[in-house]
Amino acid sequence: MTKKAICLLSGGPDSAVAAAIAKSEGYEIHALSFDYGQRHKKELECAKKIVGEMRVKRHDIFKINLDQIGGSALTGNLKIPEGRKTEEIKKSKEIPATYVPARNTIFLSYALAYAEVLDADSIFIGANILDFSGYPDCRPEYFKKFQEMANLATKRAVEGKVIEIKYPVIEMTKAEIIKRGIELEVPFEYTWSCYKGGEKACGVCDSCVLRLNAFKEAGYLDPIEYER
Amino acid sequence: MTKKAICLLSGGPDSAVAAAIAKSEGYEIHALSFDYGQRHKKELECAKKIVGEMRVKRHDIFKINLDQIGGSALTGNLKIPEGRKTEEIKKSKEIPATYVPARNTIFLSYALAYAEVLDADSIFIGANILDFSGYPDCRPEYFKKFQEMANLATKRAVEGKVIEIKYPVIEMTKAEIIKRGIELEVPFEYTWSCYKGGEKACGVCDSCVLRLNAFKEAGYLDPIEYER
Repeated sequence: MTKKAICLLSGGPDSAVAAAIAKSEGYEIHALSFDYGQRHKKELECAKKIVGEMRVKRHDIFKINLDQIGGSALTGNLKIPEGRKTEEIKKSKEIPATYVPARNTIFLSYALAYAEVLDADSIFIGANILDFSGYPDCRPEYFKKFQEMANLATKRAVEGKVIEIKYPVIEMTKAEIIKRGIELEVPFEYTWSCYKGGEKACGVCDSCVLRLNAFKEAGYLDPIEYER
Repeated sequence: MTKKAICLLSGGPDSAVAAAIAKSEGYEIHALSFDYGQRHKKELECAKKIVGEMRVKRHDIFKINLDQIGGSALTGNLKIPEGRKTEEIKKSKEIPATYVPARNTIFLSYALAYAEVLDADSIFIGANILDFSGYPDCRPEYFKKFQEMANLATKRAVEGKVIEIKYPVIEMTKAEIIKRGIELEVPFEYTWSCYKGGEKACGVCDSCVLRLNAFKEAGYLDPIEYER
């Protein structure tokens, strides 16, 4: 029987590569994106284009309104940091304003529910090592605990069929993720990283800076357009 | 400084009593209800009336559309079981059709995010022993694991301020919950238990049967009206 995976797809490169890895491992892909009130809603259009290229079984976009909760530059009025250099972002001990409270916990909870309904074996999430210098819910130990909790949370698990949480790019550098994505023919031209909602990527927010640096290190041209 | 609690309030007796316990312990109450596509939306009207009586700091109703996910009699087209006796419900080993996949995980995830934004110390949930004969996400061991996960998930926890998950009625019988609620002056006349969305409670679904039995055992008259 074909293994099924729920692949969380933000529209960014990391989750696209995570989904491509799931596909390369033989999973049937059920992509799941969230319209959570993010400023950079453009990433959802990108997610749609990515699944269009990737041959997935289905793609759902759940509307979940995290703006009801607030507390983040991505959903509220806090300022998005810009102009920081790669090393500065990597070394910073402070959790940035773009942190969305409990976002991965909420996303994974929905994925868990959906995995149970679709009888899926695994959930793939594109969380990455660079993020977890800042975001607490991007650390491997967090995902391990989520797994333990999930093993007690669902009817499926109680019946002996665990839903596995997979985070295959977590320990890769951003450059390694790009390289792996190139091998797997991920359509990077449709991926979106910028925290802002502009026509072109801004090129100066943390997310753009890390992306540009990753492509440079990987030795590939970033196929998207930048404002500057 | 006053301790703050997020109290999950469904509109049913158990969560109302849990919130009343939080209040009796000196917490400032921030009530949180979910409009999740449940058939028995009437419980939200009840939640509003309960907080009106209870003096809370605020009450939010988050709209979260679990009907996007499906897989439950409470949000979809599965049949709600009826006509079972109290003993039958208690003894049943089968998880009933009213189980909503990962519901408590999703509710607690939102509560966790909101607790972080409001800088709340605790989350109160009215999960109870009788439910956990059937629902996997109503067992104490599940909540303990959720706590461990939550301790790694948020910025607040990373900064040393854990958000405590509290489930004060979990080991009480339904009758004990009613008695405790009477002591704490919980307005049971506004609470709703029935799984169906009728004008009056049906009196025959599992939830009505357990409630009627609880009031009977506690020696109080259930102040709400029943169809039969």
